[in-house]
Amino acid sequence: MQALQELRDRMAELSDLGAVQMLAGWDQLVMMPADGASSRAHQLGTLARLAHERSTGAEMGEWLEQIDAQAAGLDELDRDLVRVARRDWERARRVPDELAVERARAEADGQESWQLARASDDFAAFAPALERNVELARAYGECVAQDGESRYEGLLSDFDFGLRTQELRRVFSALARELPPLAAEASVVLPPRTLEVPVAAQQAAVAGTLRRLGVDDASWRVDVSTHPFTAWVGTGDSRVTTRYSDGDVESLLSSLHEYGHALYERQVDTALDRTNLGTGTSMSIHESQSKLWENHVARSPAFAEVLAAELGAGGFTVPAAHLHATLVGVEPSLVRVSADPLTYPLHIVVRFELELAMIEGDLAVADLPAAWREQMRRLLGVEVPSDALGCLQDVHWGAGAFGYFPSYALGCLIAAQLWEAMEAELGPREDELRRGEVAPIQRWLGEHVHRFGRRLDTTALVEHASGRPLEIEPFLRYVAPLAGG
Amino acid sequence: MQALQELRDRMAELSDLGAVQMLAGWDQLVMMPADGASSRAHQLGTLARLAHERSTGAEMGEWLEQIDAQAAGLDELDRDLVRVARRDWERARRVPDELAVERARAEADGQESWQLARASDDFAAFAPALERNVELARAYGECVAQDGESRYEGLLSDFDFGLRTQELRRVFSALARELPPLAAEASVVLPPRTLEVPVAAQQAAVAGTLRRLGVDDASWRVDVSTHPFTAWVGTGDSRVTTRYSDGDVESLLSSLHEYGHALYERQVDTALDRTNLGTGTSMSIHESQSKLWENHVARSPAFAEVLAAELGAGGFTVPAAHLHATLVGVEPSLVRVSADPLTYPLHIVVRFELELAMIEGDLAVADLPAAWREQMRRLLGVEVPSDALGCLQDVHWGAGAFGYFPSYALGCLIAAQLWEAMEAELGPREDELRRGEVAPIQRWLGEHVHRFGRRLDTTALVEHASGRPLEIEPFLRYVAPLAGG
Repeated sequence: MQALQELRDRMAELSDLGAVQMLAGWDQLVMMPADGASSRAHQLGTLARLAHERSTGAEMGEWLEQIDAQAAGLDELDRDLVRVARRDWERARRVPDELAVERARAEADGQESWQLARASDDFAAFAPALERNVELARAYGECVAQDGESRYEGLLSDFDFGLRTQELRRVFSALARELPPLAAEASVVLPPRTLEVPVAAQQAAVAGTLRRLGVDDASWRVDVSTHPFTAWVGTGDSRVTTRYSDGDVESLLSSLHEYGHALYERQVDTALDRTNLGTGTSMSIHESQSKLWENHVARSPAFAEVLAAELGAGGFTVPAAHLHATLVGVEPSLVRVSADPLTYPLHIVVRFELELAMIEGDLAVADLPAAWREQMRRLLGVEVPSDALGCLQDVHWGAGAFGYFPSYALGCLIAAQLWEAMEAELGPREDELRRGEVAPIQRWLGEHVHRFGRRLDTTALVEHASGRPLEIEPFLRYVAPLAGG
Repeated sequence: MQALQELRDRMAELSDLGAVQMLAGWDQLVMMPADGASSRAHQLGTLARLAHERSTGAEMGEWLEQIDAQAAGLDELDRDLVRVARRDWERARRVPDELAVERARAEADGQESWQLARASDDFAAFAPALERNVELARAYGECVAQDGESRYEGLLSDFDFGLRTQELRRVFSALARELPPLAAEASVVLPPRTLEVPVAAQQAAVAGTLRRLGVDDASWRVDVSTHPFTAWVGTGDSRVTTRYSDGDVESLLSSLHEYGHALYERQVDTALDRTNLGTGTSMSIHESQSKLWENHVARSPAFAEVLAAELGAGGFTVPAAHLHATLVGVEPSLVRVSADPLTYPLHIVVRFELELAMIEGDLAVADLPAAWREQMRRLLGVEVPSDALGCLQDVHWGAGAFGYFPSYALGCLIAAQLWEAMEAELGPREDELRRGEVAPIQRWLGEHVHRFGRRLDTTALVEHASGRPLEIEPFLRYVAPLAGG
């Protein structure tokens, strides 16, 4: 079928362009000399424009129509390929070029404005750029929403296709009810501890730990960047970054977190290579994979023995129990990215409620700082001393990314749910984790989650892998021991 | 004029795509994990195909026609831009899309195959990939040749527009006649010396020397790769590589060599940024810039004092005269990249004659190793003990680059000719080089060579900068002292 081949060729091309964008982005943050920034902006702009043109071309509509006429002859994989291609094409076509251009500009301006405003703790300086991004996000959400979806649901579907606001309200209000009392108990039972680990020992431990998980020079890179991230540049080319500072052991957690993202992409069925189905399915599933390795492996008492041994090999001696306590200590705090595993989702609930209100028109940008303080007081019991440590701490809204934050909390919940499903099948992981044996975990995730790529959306994948709809109970059971439960 | 703006936009897009291709190529050789090779081949294939499509589109022909109708209104720069755009467009239109894609893929595969074959000294393992590249190069050369050009001239014109095989035969046969007797004398007068410089001292000296030439972290990278090369990824993003081994001081020469390439691209007139004129004009001019810094700076007795001082700062003491003798010592040898400055062009004559024969169908790939041995015996008087030290030593043919080698020897000749023209204008450089002062050299090159970008082709540029057509005499005068002359 000629049209199907044309469609597959286009998908392969878009997959290659995506990989090159990922490479150029990785290089910008890890390797590029600073003065290359302006050329790189041009290059990334050109790649994005080309990818947009090639993914919205009218010829795609013709191919899809021709394929429709012969749809009965498609095998299961091609049916999924065509289904997702149509969905992506129709969504992209609903966005007028001018809106896409204006959004891109507002997002670039917003990030710049945010950076300056945060540095000078000056929300008023950021407010106009944020207002513009809210306005354009509302317009965009209205464009892509369909079948009675709200404009917020339109935005959500860019990151997690099919998620419903009502479902988020249900889950997040349950978290808002259950977590604060647990946090209060946990901060007494397991208060945070600091551990001054020299950077050299952290580097040795990160390298040694990742090596145990299969990270080899033949198909991985491990580098340093300002903010940890993962790039999947190709089959057999996974790149994670971390960062080091003497004052903490964040590198141990963040390297396992990024490993989880990378492993997901590596274990997608190779039959989906260079198709539109060959990547992770959604932000929340991606985040579930990173959180699974961060929360359920790196933060487990058993794996603390491995981490302590690797630190020891790097010349720093610490008892495993002490290291574990450092990695899980609970204290309600101001900053999302350094939050403990128990209170972390509450930071997301704050953001979800506020961004939903901004998009629905119930919260004016000017009122955001006060609303943020109020929410932090209510959910985390902390007083916000400045907007820099408050509503200016994250880049997302300035970069126009509304509907992105929920995936961080959903990732925590899904990770816990998958972990329970896996242990129900394989038995408790404790003994094996103590010896650093993770191959059965890798295999189970590959089989039940990773291999599907984009063939299953978030909700369907969670049900398929765990046999149950999304629930908060597994996460509550995961954090209960931190609160002495 | 709308059509001119469209053309300029397209040129900017192609310039961005070219930069991204350069980045992906750099990454492949410097950063990429080995298992990423097959994905990278796809990515490079897609970029090449997109660049080919966008540079051959029928719309370009329409723009060029519309611009023609109003050509009187163009300023000088736009006239050059349109002239070169038409030339490139017409050449590219002659190449079928499938051939362009197949070549890109065969070149990536060939590089990978070459790397393995060289490591195991196994020519037979490389032969199929080489055969495929010869076959595709012949097809390609036939496509682009015009006005009675041979297919080899078609290939040449990709690297040096307007070069003729007959001109190469004239120049190279003169070198084949003049150089062997000089080499015989020189290897007695100035035999090679070895100098065991620890890698750490070489690294310090390379870093220190490049710093004196203006290489800073803000807009340069200096890395290590199997084969030294240069990538210009953007304005303010120049990347050179070198390699180190304890047994020699090649790194001092190769880093200055690559610096010459990078400086050329950096000093192209900024008014040509993101146009089709904004890069070096040809391989032979490019090579003249690298050879100028390698032969006339790094190998001068005066600059040896700077290099000796930098080695000293790296903890290795050597008298400047001894270092200089090491850098210029003459001995016919096996390997091009480590050849002395006198016999170097003979290595190119070997390659020119063999690649010409392969492209013209007079030499089968299977016969290459024997033919290589025979040529080396004839021109350099050496016996080749293995293919790894013979016809497997260079990546070029495996990467499909036929017609490229001549530029290396032309570069030596042009460098000598430019150096004489520069000294005629500025006076001898000796005293300033002894103090490491190179700013007048950088300025002279910027003014007389670099700034033109592609506005002048090889022959015209040599005449413009030196006031004379291409000659071999300046090079013979440069090497005469090595033979005691």
